[in-house]
Amino acid sequence: MKPVCLVIGAGAGIGGTVGARFAAEGYHAVLCRRQNREGLDTLVARITENGGTASGFLLNAVEPDALEERIAATERDIGPIEVVIYNLGAQIGNRDLTETTEKQFERCWRMATFGLFRTARAVLPVMAERATGSMIVTSATAAMRGNPGQHAHAAAMAGRRMLCQTLGAEYASRGVHVCHVLIDGPVDAPDTVGLLLGKERFQALREARGLGKDGLLLPEQIAETYLHLHRQHRSAWSNEIDLRPWTDLPWWNSRNESRGY
Amino acid sequence: MKPVCLVIGAGAGIGGTVGARFAAEGYHAVLCRRQNREGLDTLVARITENGGTASGFLLNAVEPDALEERIAATERDIGPIEVVIYNLGAQIGNRDLTETTEKQFERCWRMATFGLFRTARAVLPVMAERATGSMIVTSATAAMRGNPGQHAHAAAMAGRRMLCQTLGAEYASRGVHVCHVLIDGPVDAPDTVGLLLGKERFQALREARGLGKDGLLLPEQIAETYLHLHRQHRSAWSNEIDLRPWTDLPWWNSRNESRGY
Amino acid sequence: MKPVCLVIGAGAGIGGTVGARFAAEGYHAVLCRRQNREGLDTLVARITENGGTASGFLLNAVEPDALEERIAATERDIGPIEVVIYNLGAQIGNRDLTETTEKQFERCWRMATFGLFRTARAVLPVMAERATGSMIVTSATAAMRGNPGQHAHAAAMAGRRMLCQTLGAEYASRGVHVCHVLIDGPVDAPDTVGLLLGKERFQALREARGLGKDGLLLPEQIAETYLHLHRQHRSAWSNEIDLRPWTDLPWWNSRNESRGY
Amino acid sequence: MKPVCLVIGAGAGIGGTVGARFAAEGYHAVLCRRQNREGLDTLVARITENGGTASGFLLNAVEPDALEERIAATERDIGPIEVVIYNLGAQIGNRDLTETTEKQFERCWRMATFGLFRTARAVLPVMAERATGSMIVTSATAAMRGNPGQHAHAAAMAGRRMLCQTLGAEYASRGVHVCHVLIDGPVDAPDTVGLLLGKERFQALREARGLGKDGLLLPEQIAETYLHLHRQHRSAWSNEIDLRPWTDLPWWNSRNESRGY
Repeated sequence: MKPVCLVIGAGAGIGGTVGARFAAEGYHAVLCRRQNREGLDTLVARITENGGTASGFLLNAVEPDALEERIAATERDIGPIEVVIYNLGAQIGNRDLTETTEKQFERCWRMATFGLFRTARAVLPVMAERATGSMIVTSATAAMRGNPGQHAHAAAMAGRRMLCQTLGAEYASRGVHVCHVLIDGPVDAPDTVGLLLGKERFQALREARGLGKDGLLLPEQIAETYLHLHRQHRSAWSNEIDLRPWTDLPWWNSRNESRGY
Repeated sequence: MKPVCLVIGAGAGIGGTVGARFAAEGYHAVLCRRQNREGLDTLVARITENGGTASGFLLNAVEPDALEERIAATERDIGPIEVVIYNLGAQIGNRDLTETTEKQFERCWRMATFGLFRTARAVLPVMAERATGSMIVTSATAAMRGNPGQHAHAAAMAGRRMLCQTLGAEYASRGVHVCHVLIDGPVDAPDTVGLLLGKERFQALREARGLGKDGLLLPEQIAETYLHLHRQHRSAWSNEIDLRPWTDLPWWNSRNESRGY
Repeated sequence: MKPVCLVIGAGAGIGGTVGARFAAEGYHAVLCRRQNREGLDTLVARITENGGTASGFLLNAVEPDALEERIAATERDIGPIEVVIYNLGAQIGNRDLTETTEKQFERCWRMATFGLFRTARAVLPVMAERATGSMIVTSATAAMRGNPGQHAHAAAMAGRRMLCQTLGAEYASRGVHVCHVLIDGPVDAPDTVGLLLGKERFQALREARGLGKDGLLLPEQIAETYLHLHRQHRSAWSNEIDLRPWTDLPWWNSRNESRGY
Repeated sequence: MKPVCLVIGAGAGIGGTVGARFAAEGYHAVLCRRQNREGLDTLVARITENGGTASGFLLNAVEPDALEERIAATERDIGPIEVVIYNLGAQIGNRDLTETTEKQFERCWRMATFGLFRTARAVLPVMAERATGSMIVTSATAAMRGNPGQHAHAAAMAGRRMLCQTLGAEYASRGVHVCHVLIDGPVDAPDTVGLLLGKERFQALREARGLGKDGLLLPEQIAETYLHLHRQHRSAWSNEIDLRPWTDLPWWNSRNESRGY
């Protein structure tokens, strides 16, 4: 029975690519996403064609028990979850305060923060019993600082980051590795950044950074670091790391002249 | 008509004391808390005895519309809100992950993060129209890092901090001052820290730090800094400050020997 | 005998203005700067005209013993130093790595970091014996993050910030208050920002922000917060605060569109 | 001609081990340390025995031109430097302010900050011409916060961290990867932590964490992450990561009860 790599939020960007990378290393990839059965089947098929094994499930993470039941069913029917990739985004674009509804604010939290809490509650104790396992959490720059218009997203992602810290503080000594990965730049993924920016602006961004090359974060390169994080020996674990493309400045750098210094 | 200092979370510690301090400077204090009508009346009476004016309201911040209606009624019936003190705590003590319920996790977020979002939505646009006003947010060390057992509290407080940043980023240029105040140490307040620790441990802590003196954070001294923050000229605003007693090390310092360096 | 407010780096901007503010509160201001005897005399004269007392000294902070001797002489001849304002800047403008000389790099460190260390060694133990006193340290955004071209300045200012933390950690419990003040924006000061930008760009910046008004950090408003910090009761001390004008976004916010989120 | 991995600070802990790891991957390891010719020869011999190639040099990093000449000689005589490991420590143990001498304070800065600046000036422009290369910088928890007694070390390490940021900001877009690695815990290395704690306390620490196993940071595991960082594709670079053993809490967590929350 293969160990399982469970991906919560498996689109055509980071999530699906990380799942495929682990599948290539002998894990059974369990790919979960909210919608697009066809896209999901394509991801599973591609893994199978490459000699790996995978299963795909539609899963609405904000629904009660959905995460918990998927985790229980995976452990029962497929294999021991050795690594969880929590990869749900909660970006809704920039909105002024008065244009951010209570419903949006709450939904971002349910996706980014509460869903992680529920996933952790369902899977970390199981990993702790086996004294091994990793939870790798994709996070966004909004977890580090609150930009204008990011009310819902930043509050939710900051909660996600802090939760990674409390989870790590409780589970590290029990052999479970929790890592918060700050994706600090645009990912070359039509499903997320592409949708957010719209087709034209996304294409313009890609071209500005060098089309089809490496000016944006390439999901398959992100996957290499996720794999490395999971493989880190417990004597030398990373809990917080960042990733960004060489063409970009980190979030902490300013760009306009009056703040150059 | 006096300008109003609205306090959300006006207990016998920071909230009520800050309200009284502003009342002494000519503000009408509007004190809101969830329960204890008697305690609330005492706070109002004390302000009145000292020549100030105040009103007290019981208010359940997690109830729909409660915050919004109180803000609207204050503007309509009492006076223009010049400063809001958002002072709701969400500390539930240390609990292991499996002992932290979904309900607790959500409730902390409703108090610490969502309530601030709702308050901001109701009051900041009104302040922005007048191009003046302050929102001073009491925050906890858990907003900066996640300690073991603090899953619900840390995730909620980190959301609070990040929300202060997005709010400030949108409203500063419209003349409204948002400040996140990190209370980084135990407050000499029987209503909060006292309840959390229990009577005996709280008394032991007070004695260890110098009973009745200044080893814990004194609410009346915290109030001086809140008043200063509100009075800061808009050419030199603080957005993040910390407060702690001289007897304590900041959160970033370690205490045990193997981490001394 | 009046208590002394000693200012290291007393130009026409923050330093001189803070000295004057303390002088107005009954402190004897001891103003030290490297050059411009005439400017120094003007600052002293203005304080005297306003009914205060002050002394001015030319002092080269990178010279061996200069700081130490000035501190000893002040304690011996003028009065007990109750507050030190360490206000030496070390900005040399943006320079590529290969254009930053070893000499410049070392000089920035001598001004920003080593000078503070030497000042602290000379004055904090004296304050600790009296169990009272404040050291307020003006700092720059470069202490928080390293922007392109800021090699010398950022390394030096980061050292300054960390030194404030180690000093506070050792001296707080002995009654001495150390505070790191992040000046996160352009100060309306022809001596520093004006020189750095050049007359024309400085004037353009002032006009863009609202000439003669409050679009830049006004030194007299900064001084109000310095005074408040010194007066904070030891039960509620701030160790790190920031100051910026309402027209500006904090350093942590991005400005260009592709990083809006 | 093999590409070179240049290690500044190649003792029996992180430095020598990382050098050996790169040698096993086909790099020529150039190992530099201040003293102990014999220990250096042992490191080189061990690499050779394992089929790799290496050279060892005694080098005093605080001496003028020593770093610059070694870098030039390496490029001229050995091969192109593809990765530099800057691994000089500057820990002098905890000392009160009055017991920290100017000489110690300056020496720490020369090792931790100035040496990195000089190394960067000598090697990054060369790498930039080739549009490839990595500088991986070992750093300490003291770079993040200033603990009591760490005046010299913390100021120096904070400068090191900020310098990594300015270097990355200038050289990333030219194809050179700079990464600041926070070693946040005790390393299982008799040469550094062992010397600092003394033989008995070091052994006690090892036993408390599980002797000979993995309770301390194992240099060979740290080396795996250094290798991964160098191999990261430029579309997804890390600039700041941390490493700590599973038995330890991160620096941001408190340990004593009164700060549990």
